[in-house]
Amino acid sequence: MTVTPDSLTSLDLDPAFALHRGGKLEVRSTVPVRDAADLSLAYTPGVARVCTAIADNPDLVNDYTWVSNVVAVVSDGTAVLGLGDIGPAAAMPVMEGKALLFKQFAGVDAVPVCIDCTDVDAIVETVVRLAPSFGGVNLEDISAPRCFEVEDRLRALLDIPVFHDDQHGTAIVVLAALRNAARLTGRSLGDLRAVVAGAGASGVAVSRILLNAGIGDIAVADSKGIIHPGRDDLNQVKRALARDTNKAGLTGSTEGALAGADVFVGLSGSTISERAVAGMARDSIVFALSNPTPEVEPSVAARYARVVATGRSDHPNQINNVLAFPGVFRGALDVRARTITENMKVAAAEALAAVVGDDLSESYVIPSPFDARVAPAVIAAVARQAREDGVARK
Amino acid sequence: MTVTPDSLTSLDLDPAFALHRGGKLEVRSTVPVRDAADLSLAYTPGVARVCTAIADNPDLVNDYTWVSNVVAVVSDGTAVLGLGDIGPAAAMPVMEGKALLFKQFAGVDAVPVCIDCTDVDAIVETVVRLAPSFGGVNLEDISAPRCFEVEDRLRALLDIPVFHDDQHGTAIVVLAALRNAARLTGRSLGDLRAVVAGAGASGVAVSRILLNAGIGDIAVADSKGIIHPGRDDLNQVKRALARDTNKAGLTGSTEGALAGADVFVGLSGSTISERAVAGMARDSIVFALSNPTPEVEPSVAARYARVVATGRSDHPNQINNVLAFPGVFRGALDVRARTITENMKVAAAEALAAVVGDDLSESYVIPSPFDARVAPAVIAAVARQAREDGVARK
Repeated sequence: MTVTPDSLTSLDLDPAFALHRGGKLEVRSTVPVRDAADLSLAYTPGVARVCTAIADNPDLVNDYTWVSNVVAVVSDGTAVLGLGDIGPAAAMPVMEGKALLFKQFAGVDAVPVCIDCTDVDAIVETVVRLAPSFGGVNLEDISAPRCFEVEDRLRALLDIPVFHDDQHGTAIVVLAALRNAARLTGRSLGDLRAVVAGAGASGVAVSRILLNAGIGDIAVADSKGIIHPGRDDLNQVKRALARDTNKAGLTGSTEGALAGADVFVGLSGSTISERAVAGMARDSIVFALSNPTPEVEPSVAARYARVVATGRSDHPNQINNVLAFPGVFRGALDVRARTITENMKVAAAEALAAVVGDDLSESYVIPSPFDARVAPAVIAAVARQAREDGVARK
Repeated sequence: MTVTPDSLTSLDLDPAFALHRGGKLEVRSTVPVRDAADLSLAYTPGVARVCTAIADNPDLVNDYTWVSNVVAVVSDGTAVLGLGDIGPAAAMPVMEGKALLFKQFAGVDAVPVCIDCTDVDAIVETVVRLAPSFGGVNLEDISAPRCFEVEDRLRALLDIPVFHDDQHGTAIVVLAALRNAARLTGRSLGDLRAVVAGAGASGVAVSRILLNAGIGDIAVADSKGIIHPGRDDLNQVKRALARDTNKAGLTGSTEGALAGADVFVGLSGSTISERAVAGMARDSIVFALSNPTPEVEPSVAARYARVVATGRSDHPNQINNVLAFPGVFRGALDVRARTITENMKVAAAEALAAVVGDDLSESYVIPSPFDARVAPAVIAAVARQAREDGVARK
C-alpha cells in the first residue's frame, strides 16, 4: 500500500492511526513557572547556582536534574518488530510506545532516540556522546549480529545501565514463564531439553539466560537448521552458541530436533508443523512467540502441549517484554546501578515468576502486564540484586 | 565552593536547589494505556501498521509521531550562561529550563541533549545522526566562534529549523526593543549609530540583525577594542564584521566609540563607566544586557540615557530570549518550515515590538515574558513569513 497525505482521513478510520495522530508523548515541566519569581529560580539567575554546584561535584547531576530518571530508547530502525529494516523515522512509533510504557509501568521518563546511522562504530560513538543526558540506555530493534557488539561495547564504555530489550527483556520473561511451566509439571529446569528456533537478538539471549539458569540441554536453530560445531557458516556469536549448547549433538531441522523435546521456544517467525509438536515429550511446553503469527497456532499446539504461551494479548500466557523492562530500569535507576548484571536479570525473572504464586495453572504461568504487583516485585528484586552484586551507587 | 552529597540538605535551603531537586521535566503519554486493548493500539500489533505506513511514505512521520512537535535543545556545555565551559552535565539544568520554557510559552516539546564532544565535526555529525528524532534543533551555550560553524553546517545539512538561540533569540529581542526605543524618540533605525560591546555569539548576531534592519552605523568591540579592518588578530567571523560595520572607521576602546553614539548594546560582561554613558548623544539608548551584572548600573545609566534595558527581571525593559525562541519554533513547526530565514527573525522582532503598541514609554519598550499576547504574535508572524519566503511545507 502506498500512503499519500491525501489519504490521511481514511487512514484515521483505523483506530491505531487515530490514536497515533500527533504522536503519543509530550515533555512537561514538573515545576511551576507562573511569574518572574518562578522564572528566576527555574532559569536565570537561579539556575546558575545549580550548574555551578554540579560543575564542582558532578554527582549532583543525579539530584538536581532529571538525568538519573531518564532512559534513552535508542534504535537505528534496522529490525523493527517483525518489519525488518524500515529506518529510523518509521521506527519512531515503536520507540514512542516503548517510552510511554516505561512511564506507565514504572514512572521512568524515556526519550525516543532514532538515529540515522547503522554502522556499529557510529552507533556506539553517538550513544557515548549522548550519555551525559541520560541515566540509562535501552537499545531497541537493532538487527543481529550488530546488536550484540553495540551492546557489549556500550556496556564496557558507559557506567550507566545499557540493556538491549529485544534480547534481555524477552529472555527474562521467557525464563520466568518457563520456571513456572516447569514447576507446574513437577520438573526443574535441569530436567528439560529445549529447542529454540531463532538465533537473532532474542533467540541468543533466551538461550544464554536458560543456560545460566541451568537448563538440561538446549538446541538453537537459525534459518539453516540446528547450530552445531560442524557448521562452517556461523558468525562469532553463533560459534559461541555451538560450543555452549546442544550436548545431544543434534543436526538438521528444528522439527527434527523437537522429537522428544520438552520445550519449544519460537523466536524466528517461521512455522512448525502439528506433527512436530505432537512428537514432543509428555507435558511439553510450547512458547510460540512470533508476532502477530505464532510459529504454531495455539489451539493446535494445545492438543499436545501441557503449556502454551504466545506473544499475543488475545491468548493466555502472553510473553510480553513490558513485564520486565520498566521494572528492570526502575530498579537499576533507583540504586544508580552502574550496569545491569546477569544476576539482576535472573532476579527479575524469579520475581516475575513468583507473582503467579499459588494461582499457577496451564493458562497462567506468567502474570498479566496489567497486574499491579509485577513492577514493584521486579523493581525490588533488581535493586536488591544490584546491591548484592556491588554495582549499586546508592 | 566544593559541594558534597553530605551537604544536600543545606543546599536545599536555597530555593533554586529545592526547586531543582529531581529535575524539572518529565515525559508523559498523551494517549491512554489502561488495558490490553489500548496496548494493542499504542504498541504491538497496532503500531506496526503505523510504522509500515511511514516506511512507505516518510512524510507521515509528521502526522503520526511526535517528531514534528519536538525540538532538541543541544549543548556541549562550553559557554553556559556567564559560567563558561562547565561541561555537558553541569549544563543540564539550563537545558531543562529551556525545555520547560518551550512548553510553557508555546506548547513545543523539547528534549535536552547535552553532548560529550566539543569538536565542530563531532557536534555536527552527532546532531545529523539524531535528526530523524526531532522537528527542530535549538543550539544552546556553545562557545564562539565554533557556534557559528556548527550552526552554518547544520543549516546546510538539515531540512528542519536550526537556530542558535544565544545568537538569534537575543538578536530578535534586541531588534524589537531597539525599534520601539527609536520610535519613542522619533527616530528610525537608519538614524542611529550603535556600539555593540561583545563579539561572541550574541554580539555577532545582534550586529548582523541590526545591519539587516538598516541601522545607520554600528561599531562592534571585542576584548581588544573596536573591530576594524586594520586589526590582524581577527578570526573569520570578525573579519566579516570588520568589512560590514564601522563606516566611521573607529578604532580603540568601547568607551571611546561611545562618544556621541546613540545606542549601546552590552553583551560582553565587561563594564562601562558613567562618564562614557554621559558622553553619548541626546536621547541615548543603553541596553546593558550582561547577567547578572549589567555593564553599567541601570540607575546610573538612567541619569543620561532616555531608554535603559537590561537582562534582569527586576528592572524595566527585560531583554529576555524567552520572548522569541518559543514562538519562533512554534511558528516554524506549525508550517513545517525547512529552515528559519533572516526574514522570519525580523518578522518575529517586528511582531514582538508591535505588542507594545500605544503603551510605549521609556520603561516599556519590550513586553513582559508573561504577556499572553507575545507568543501568538510571534508565532503568526513567523509562520506567515515562512510561507512568504517559500520555506513552509504545510
